[in-house]
Parts: sequence; structure tokens; C-alpha cells
Amino acid sequence: MHPNEKKPSGSVPTANILASKQKEISITEFFEKNKQILGFDSKSKSLLMGVKEAVDNALDACEEADILPDIFVKVEKLEDEEYRMIIEDNGPGIVRKMMPNVFGRLLYGSRFHALRQSRGQQGIGISATIMFGNISTGKPAHVQSKIEGEDSVAWGMDIVIDTKSNRPIVSNEAAFSWENKDSGTRIEYFTRGRYISGKQSIFEYLKNTAIVNPHAKITFVDPDGKTFVFERATDTLPVKSKEIKPHPEGLEIGDLQKMSQATHQKSVRAFLINDFSRVTARIADEIFKITGIKPEKKPSNLTRDECKDIVNAIADVKIMAPQTDCLSPIGDTLIKKGLMHVLDGMRPEYYAPPVTRAPKAVNGNPFTVEVGIVYGGDIPSEGQVTVLRFANRVPLLYQAGACAITKAISDVDWRRYGLEQRGGKGIPFGPAIILVHVASTKVFFTSEGKEAIADLSEITEEIGLALRLCGRNLKSHLRKRERREHTRAKFEIVQIILPELAKRSADFLNKPVPNLDLTISKIMNVIWIEPSVDSKKKKFRKITYTVFNYTRNERSFRMHAQLPKEAVNLTLFSEAHFVEMTEDGKAAWDIKDLPPAASTTISFELTGDMADVFSPDDVYISGINPVIVMGADPLPGDWGIKGIEVTEIESEEDLIEEEEEEEEIQEVLEDD
Amino acid sequence: MHPNEKKPSGSVPTANILASKQKEISITEFFEKNKQILGFDSKSKSLLMGVKEAVDNALDACEEADILPDIFVKVEKLEDEEYRMIIEDNGPGIVRKMMPNVFGRLLYGSRFHALRQSRGQQGIGISATIMFGNISTGKPAHVQSKIEGEDSVAWGMDIVIDTKSNRPIVSNEAAFSWENKDSGTRIEYFTRGRYISGKQSIFEYLKNTAIVNPHAKITFVDPDGKTFVFERATDTLPVKSKEIKPHPEGLEIGDLQKMSQATHQKSVRAFLINDFSRVTARIADEIFKITGIKPEKKPSNLTRDECKDIVNAIADVKIMAPQTDCLSPIGDTLIKKGLMHVLDGMRPEYYAPPVTRAPKAVNGNPFTVEVGIVYGGDIPSEGQVTVLRFANRVPLLYQAGACAITKAISDVDWRRYGLEQRGGKGIPFGPAIILVHVASTKVFFTSEGKEAIADLSEITEEIGLALRLCGRNLKSHLRKRERREHTRAKFEIVQIILPELAKRSADFLNKPVPNLDLTISKIMNVIWIEPSVDSKKKKFRKITYTVFNYTRNERSFRMHAQLPKEAVNLTLFSEAHFVEMTEDGKAAWDIKDLPPAASTTISFELTGDMADVFSPDDVYISGINPVIVMGADPLPGDWGIKGIEVTEIESEEDLIEEEEEEEEIQEVLEDD
Repeated sequence: MHPNEKKPSGSVPTANILASKQKEISITEFFEKNKQILGFDSKSKSLLMGVKEAVDNALDACEEADILPDIFVKVEKLEDEEYRMIIEDNGPGIVRKMMPNVFGRLLYGSRFHALRQSRGQQGIGISATIMFGNISTGKPAHVQSKIEGEDSVAWGMDIVIDTKSNRPIVSNEAAFSWENKDSGTRIEYFTRGRYISGKQSIFEYLKNTAIVNPHAKITFVDPDGKTFVFERATDTLPVKSKEIKPHPEGLEIGDLQKMSQATHQKSVRAFLINDFSRVTARIADEIFKITGIKPEKKPSNLTRDECKDIVNAIADVKIMAPQTDCLSPIGDTLIKKGLMHVLDGMRPEYYAPPVTRAPKAVNGNPFTVEVGIVYGGDIPSEGQVTVLRFANRVPLLYQAGACAITKAISDVDWRRYGLEQRGGKGIPFGPAIILVHVASTKVFFTSEGKEAIADLSEITEEIGLALRLCGRNLKSHLRKRERREHTRAKFEIVQIILPELAKRSADFLNKPVPNLDLTISKIMNVIWIEPSVDSKKKKFRKITYTVFNYTRNERSFRMHAQLPKEAVNLTLFSEAHFVEMTEDGKAAWDIKDLPPAASTTISFELTGDMADVFSPDDVYISGINPVIVMGADPLPGDWGIKGIEVTEIESEEDLIEEEEEEEEIQEVLEDD
Repeated sequence: MHPNEKKPSGSVPTANILASKQKEISITEFFEKNKQILGFDSKSKSLLMGVKEAVDNALDACEEADILPDIFVKVEKLEDEEYRMIIEDNGPGIVRKMMPNVFGRLLYGSRFHALRQSRGQQGIGISATIMFGNISTGKPAHVQSKIEGEDSVAWGMDIVIDTKSNRPIVSNEAAFSWENKDSGTRIEYFTRGRYISGKQSIFEYLKNTAIVNPHAKITFVDPDGKTFVFERATDTLPVKSKEIKPHPEGLEIGDLQKMSQATHQKSVRAFLINDFSRVTARIADEIFKITGIKPEKKPSNLTRDECKDIVNAIADVKIMAPQTDCLSPIGDTLIKKGLMHVLDGMRPEYYAPPVTRAPKAVNGNPFTVEVGIVYGGDIPSEGQVTVLRFANRVPLLYQAGACAITKAISDVDWRRYGLEQRGGKGIPFGPAIILVHVASTKVFFTSEGKEAIADLSEITEEIGLALRLCGRNLKSHLRKRERREHTRAKFEIVQIILPELAKRSADFLNKPVPNLDLTISKIMNVIWIEPSVDSKKKKFRKITYTVFNYTRNERSFRMHAQLPKEAVNLTLFSEAHFVEMTEDGKAAWDIKDLPPAASTTISFELTGDMADVFSPDDVYISGINPVIVMGADPLPGDWGIKGIEVTEIESEEDLIEEEEEEEEIQEVLEDD
């Protein structure tokens, strides 16, 4: 029919034909036809997704019940691309009547409405896993669970999801006694997929999970029957994140309207103060002042415009940042451990001190960002840097390109921080690994697959800031290194050429060769601190600092370092120069009256898991003019415990000397 | 409490506490809390998403009703970041009783179950748009619609979505007579957002939409009241995509089980032949042979294992590729136009002939990939190439990083095709624009936001193939250019130095300067075809080929070119060398007995919209040994109409000459 030509009278209008087709789409059907949205797009990924959903839930449940997680994962290969997947935990278990819904119904869960950091939040993952198991193999999943309490028996059942109604079909439900199991849940399902190793594998996911959840023990049996155990690194549970009320920052008018209808509070004032976090009486009153709304008004009587005024007022009023106890960041040491873990023996040259940002809120959800960078050593330098992404302590292995973390990294001009990057955009190149963790009461993922964090400006900006701060540490390290190498070069020249000259002329004049140490000192004019690390055995490092005095005077000063307490042994305390170590591992050594051209050493041993956490470059000095010291930084102001004051100038002579030194040093630096 | 310590007896087990929290999550609540998944994450993006959903639906509806789309979009700025959005079409309209569900209910639509190419498929977009309008402004949306038929009145109503129940709340429903409107739908809603211009703007989306939907007229009024009209480029509707049955390729066991339960067919044989596309009687019988299943068995009696056997058998049986009539690709010319459109006046040096792949199927859904590349000219060469992504004729502006198209481009080693690319991975750099269109009965998007295509290996591989094929065209162009420039350089030297020498020696010997044309010919030994384009006016190009004979013999041959028929005018036919032009615009010219050192010209004019579609480099020759021709390729075998045979070798002398030529040319080439 030619376009826009009138239909023959009596023919059915298209609108009616369409109307006959218009119908509701069950959420289950929707995801059944769009499995890629849930991350079940490729065969290898599908296997991982299932494990991920089950393990994330296990960790969440254990945390809620203050149980140290002990998780068992087994992947068994059957015929033609079919696998039997088993995930078992020692969590609090699931009550019998809830099991069918938890496992057999999409969009059903306990954490969706809670404002606190947790891994699973959508109530989709595990039921979707079971659904795709059903679809791809036609076989039901078998789940069993036992809850705490001596008397409680365990219950097991087979579950299939009816994709038309999004309801569980349960069969073979039966009680049984689960031997030597206080409580826990076991999921067994069949699925089609492909088992892979390497970057995006189940093994990799479990390894990275173990790294940032050191309180968990994870056992993995791969399709070849090989067993890997990621042992617990600590017996203390991470600080349990608390549930909070929504923070008013970035509240939508509609949200406020809905809350004002639902609240039990009698007055708008009570509503604002009690139903939101960080809204004090003072803030509430400010809001009333701005909006002119009566504090005693019934919340349900708020008009749309009044809600709008309140939302706008909130933007103007200064409200305290959200509390942090709803979040549980990974923390500096674990980030560092995390980085080392993936390094697998490559000895990096430098760990930039990890950066953890103060929490902000987006749409009422507090979040915080942590960043760590490791650089150099054997890390390959040709390719792009490796990026490790985490959200609420869950490693993100797929969809890097879609992730705010990737975007934030690409938007930083890394050339300024010493990494190679074409045009100052994109993932930089060089021998570095960048770890980023976003912790939030609600992670805004780009899809139900929870593989990438959405590019919300508030979040991406925070990540960017954290990256720059960490990058700055890297840069200053590289600058230090450069200057040091420069001076060393100069140094070697002086040490080779001068003696040579001296010898020649001495021979020529038939005179004894003069001692040049003092001359060299005069020229170099630095205190040289040279670290060396000796670690023949694994988990053992002996660190020795050799301190040369290449100045004209006797020198006294104090050296400081932040040590991993757990790792230090007696050698530290028995050492001659040692002064003290504080509760938190801040150690100090005194060098007294080191004569010109003389040298001395400070050394100690580190042992155990934490031995490799300390980077020997991070030493500080006090009691001496830092500008003449090479190989240590001035003691930071925020160091807490005091260093010692720079020694007083005693005589005019000293004064002149000091000044001369300064000049010479300036020259040295300018040469550099 | 210390981990794993027994709870005080009588305390409530965590499982029960959790149970009390476990509840259903309404799909509407879910998306309300996860708007980023639907693409409503940033303020600027939210504005675009709404327009996109409405316009996509309008185009779909018009296509279904054979109506040439006439779409009106208006964005009005109100106070504090609030906008009034209006989208009106001349589609078939929506029947009154369906309006509330279509606009006021998520997961409700007419295209979800249909196997044919369409833009909207999820039944989420437009209702989500209205929901976020409600939430962010507290105001209802107003929709009105009129369906075909003289008598039908129009209906209008206000709609708010109840996010608890995912049901529409309708108010102010009223009939009215919609003056001078046969049929159509108008959506008006309020929302918060930010209006932007540039790469990811509403304007850009509408422009790109117009490009690949040339049958649509789109009018856009921006917040400043400025009106832009994208006029209809053609009055013929795109071939309407037909609805098909699922193709058995990549069918899941569960799918088959469900279909076998639902089918009305009496026997498995009838089931396979009638409920699937491309399953012939022969194929069905092969499947029965392999599986041993009885053809006359009732489909509903198929066991899980039998379904599994059938799925496996399907993989082994050779089944015809899916039919294409369920797809409507953009097509070469429009792709080229599309590319030109974004070029805005930059005159590119070369359009690689677009590549359209034969359809494949993924999970029973046929899909096809189209790729076009444009290169050089004023396209900036410093940065990365520009990538234009389309899915079912909808431009994709966000989430490039998540998209299979981006991945496919990054996985191609573009260095082999003449583009710069570090390590042969990632988006290449250089003066090029790459357009990729994926058309499918079902586009697998990474999220409900429909911004990126999921990385399903079948699809990504097809895109990769299309890219390589198109890249090969680019490469051969670049090689041609290089060789040409090389020869030209040599040429100029010969033309300058030889005459100079001749003159000198002539002066010296007091002899007249000899004519060197033949000498130059002898050295050069090429037929040189030099195109030049003259286009003072817009939509007018005069193309002239100057043909030099720099060989020792008279030369005769035929030149061929594929011209855009609509664009040629009489000058073509009146031209001396012109021979003929076929129905599809294949033109031919004969050069007869062109003497050595002589030259002649072929020229014609192109006018109108399609004038710029022809690239003068794409000319071919027949009737001559192609290796001595510079500036034209040998006539392709698949050209259809015949060229003329290479002139016979008449004498031994000729033969020797030919061979000499060959050698010399080889030398020339080796120099190069």
C-alpha cells in the first residue's frame, strides 16, 4: 500500500491490531530473553556469574550473623558443556518457608530497601542463576539450608522457576539432619557454559574476593578436581556496616512526596529530623525559615510545591556529610596486600600510599572511594597499566569499558604523574597497577549484571580525585628517584676521577697519594642514606640502611619509619641506634656525631605475612637540615610523635658554614 | 559479639531476622532506585533518553502502519532545571483503553514477543520516561492519541505511575476533536535535567536518526525556541521487516521444552517444521534420524533428554541461514550519506565502499552487520577515529565503552589497514570515521537503557569481519595513492631534469632543443588517468579525467565507473568518449587509438543530493594490460556488464614490445 493513502473503509485500524498485541511482559520472561543484561551472555561468563552471586550472598549473610565465612565452591564438568555447580557456606541459613522465594523468584530479597553497604542488593542474582540453570539444562536446582539453634533440622528442596509467573515450583522437599553443620546453605545447580582460566575466571574472582575479604576462608575445587584453599588472613570480622536513614543530599521531589505520605511522624519537623540522617533540629528550622512551611504541619499534607521548596532548601542548607559507619572500606594495608597478591613475585619498585576519600552522598546514598597504585620493578612496562576494580568488596572482572572507574582513570592526565599516555587521555601505559574500590550503601551499576559502575558525575569525580592524590605520591617518588640517581651519578664520577687525578699527580711528584675523603665530602656535601633489602627466604626481609656523612661536619639526627608491627622481630630493638617504637609501629633511630667521611648502618628484620608491606624508601629524618640529606624525607608534620629539633647554630663560624652549605647545595640541585 | 560464639539461648536466629526482611521488590521500585540502568543517570542524559524512547516508538508505529513519519519534538526550559518535553507523531495512534498501560506501566508492550526488527522491544522505555518525570517533578504526564478513521475522536489523559504496584493512575481523561490530525500520538511530560548541545545531545540524536531514517521528517524546537527541520529525503518507506518464526540456531533446551509444551501442533514433526523457520521436512527427518525420536510423538510428551538430543542434533544438521526479510538494513548509499552528513563540509579523500554482511542468527534471532569507513581530507588526524554506532536504525550515543561495536573495532589490528594503533589494539588513530550498524530481530543490549550492544561472540565476530573487509578497501586505496604519488614524483623529475639537460646540451652544441615527449614516454611507460573535481556550487560536481598516454604505442581501452544515476545529467551522454550507461548506473567510455605522448579528457557533471556520493578514484579499465595503467583498477569480474578484451597481440614484434614493457614496469614498481 502506498504510504499515507487512506485505508479501504472497514479495514481494521493499525491501532487496534497493535492493541491486540499489547500485553504485560513478565519480568522473568524479560530477563529470560535478555540474559546478557544479567551478565549471562557468554558461556564462560555464565559460569562465573552463578558462582559470584552465590558467594556474594554467602559473604553478606555471614557478615550479618557475625560468622567468619567458610565457603566451598565446586565446579564439576559433565557431558556436552554441562556443569554441576556447588556453592556451600556456613552462614545463618534461610528459614524453610523463605527458601522457595529467595531462590525461585526474581526481584525478591532482604537487602534492597536497606541503606547499608552489602554485596547483593537487587534480589535478582541467585534466582536468575537458578533460572538460567533450568533453561540451559532443563534440570532443577537443589538447595538446602540449616539455621542456627541445636534443634533445627536442615531442609532441602528442588526448585524450578516458572518464567511465566515468576514463581518457584518446588519438589522433593524434605527435612534431613545435616551432620556437623551448625548452620549454612548449599546450592547445587546444573548449567551450560565453558570453564576458563585466566583474567576473567572463577579462580581469579575467588582469589580477588579472598584478598579484600581476608576474614573469609574460600575453598575451590576446579573441574579437574584440583583443590585451592584461600586461607583466612585474619580472624576479626570487618567492621559491620550499620543501616542508616537516607541522607537528604540529592533527594528527588517524588521521593520526598512518597516518604511524606508513608511516614508515621506527626509533624513535618519530626519527619525531617527522624526520617533522615544528619538533619538536626537546627537544620530543620533553617529549612522552615527558607520555605516558610509550618513545622507542625502533617507530613501527608505537604503539597507538591512545598516538597519542591524543601528539596531546593536542602541544597542551600549546609548539611553534615553522611556518617561512615554504614560503609566498610578495604583499608590501606589490605589494598596494599591486594596489590601485592596480584603481583605474584614481581618485586615492584614502589607502592604509593593508598588514598581513602571521606564519604560523600549521591541520591542519599553515602559512598567512599579507595585507590592504590603500585609501580615499577618487574611489572611489564610496554602495555597499558593493569586496573583492578572493586565495588563493595566484590571484584569486577567484566565490562571494564562501561565502568566509571575506567572512565575516571582515562580522564586523568597521567603524564603529569609520570605515566605514558597519548594526548593525556585513555588508560595510561607503563609498569603500574591501579586498584580502585568504591564502597556505597548502594552501588549504581550499569546493569543487573553488576559488572560496571555507572558514570554518575559525583562518583566519577571522587574516583578522579583519589586517583590524582595517589598519582601525586607516585610522581614525588619518581622525582626523588631521579634526583637520587642524578646525585649518585655525580658521586661516582667524583669518586673515580678525583682519586685517579690524585694518584697521577702523586706519582708524578713522587709524593704519597693524599686521602681525598674530606675533599669528596666537600664537593658532595650530602648525608647519603642507602637502603638495601635482603630476602632470601619467603616472608623474610632484612632491611639495612647505610648512612654516609659526605659533609664537612660531624652530623647528628634522627631517622623515622612506619613499620608493620606484626612483622618486626627482636633484631629491631637490639640494634645500636634504635630509640623507640610506638603502638602503631612508628620507629625511630638516632645517629650521633657521625664524623665527616664516615658511615654507619641501621638494620632490622621483618618476618611473616606483613613483611613485604614496608617499602624501604619511606624513611624520614629530623634534627638536621633536610636539604642536605639524600634518601630520606623530612619528618611529616602529622607524624604524631615528635622528632628532634634541628641542632642550634652554636657559633658564628657554624652559621657561615651552614650558609655556605646551603649555597653549594643549591648549586648541586641546580646542576641536577 | 565475637565471631562464631554461640548466641545466648532464646535469642532470635539471624535467619529469622532476615526472613522478616525478605520481601518482593516491585519492578517499578527497582528501576526507581536504579534509574542509571535505564539510562537516566545524568541530568543531560535523562533529557535525551525521554526523547529517544518517544521518537523510537513513533518511528516503529509509523512503519507498522505504512505511514511516512512526521515527528515533532519540543524541549521547553522552565524554572530550576525543570523542562516541559513534547513529542508528537502522525502514527496510527493508540486505542483509548490501552493508553494507560502503554504509558503508565513498565514491562508492557506489543513488540516484546515479535521476531522482527523494531526499535522498541522491551516495553519499558516510555513508561520509565513518564515515571522519572513524575518522580523528579511531582507532575503527571499528559498523553493524547487519535486513531485512524474519520469518526474517531481523540482522547487525552494525565498519567502518574504508582511505583508500588506498577500500575497507571489516570486523571482528567477526556475526549476532544484533534483538528487536522488523521491519527497520531502526543506525549507531554515534565522532568528535571540539563539541556546540552554537542556530541551527546538531543539535536545530535535527532540528526543521526534522520540520516538513517530518510523517510522521516523530524522537526525540533530547542529551549531557545530555535526550530530545526530535518526534511524527508525520500517518500518511499524502508522495506517493512516481516515477523518470522524463531530460527533453531542456538536454541536452549529450556526454550525447546517450553515451546513443546505450548505448541498447538499435534506431532513433533509438525512442531519442528511449522514452529521454526528454515526447518524443512528433510531437516526434520535428519533430526529424527540422529535422535531416534518418533516423528508422530506428541510434542508435549518430549522428555528433557529428548529435547536435549534435538538441540544437539540441530547443531549437527546443516540448516539454511535465517531469511533476511525480518531485517531492514540501512544500505550502502544511506551509510555513505550518513557518513557525509556528519562530515559537515570536510571533504574526505576516500569513502570505502560500505560492507553489508549476510545475516546470521544468535539464539534464534537473525541479525546483520553493516560497516562504512570514510578517510582523509579535512578529517582531523591527531585524535582517535570517530565511531558512529547504530542498532536497528537507532543511533547509540552513550556507553561506547560497553559496546560490542567498540570492542570489535579495538580488536582489529588497524595498522594493517593503514591506521595508527598502539600495539595493534584499541580504537585506532587517524583521519577516519567508522560507522557500524547492527540490525536484528532482537538487539542484545547491555542494559534496559539500550545504549550498548552486548559482547556476544557471534555478533562481535561478525562486526569484526565487516570491519576487516571495509578496512581492506581502505588499505588498497592507500596503497594505490602511495604508488600514484611515487610515480608522480618520478614523473615530475623526468619532466624537469630531462628537458633541462636537453636544453643545456642543445645550447652547448648550438642545436635546436629536441622534443622529448617520446623519450619521457619510454621512461615512464604508463597510461596516466588523472581525475579532477570542480564543484563551485553546492550539490554540483564536474568530474574530469585527463588521460595521458606515456607509452610508446597508440592505446585503446575502455573506462568504467559506477555512477549515482539520480545525479547524472545530459553532459554525460553528450560526451565524445561515452558509450553507455546501464539501469543501475554503470557507465563506460571508450578511448580509441590515443597516440604516444598525447592526452585526452573524459568529463561529466553530477547534480543534486546524490552528487557527492561518487568518489572519482573508483574507476576501472578494460581492454588494456592493467599493469601499465596508473589511476584506475582492472574491471572487477563481478561487474556484470562486459568490458572489452585485451587487444590481441598481432605480431611477434608486438609480443616482444609487450614483454619489454612488462619488464620495465616491474622495474618501476620495484623502485617504488
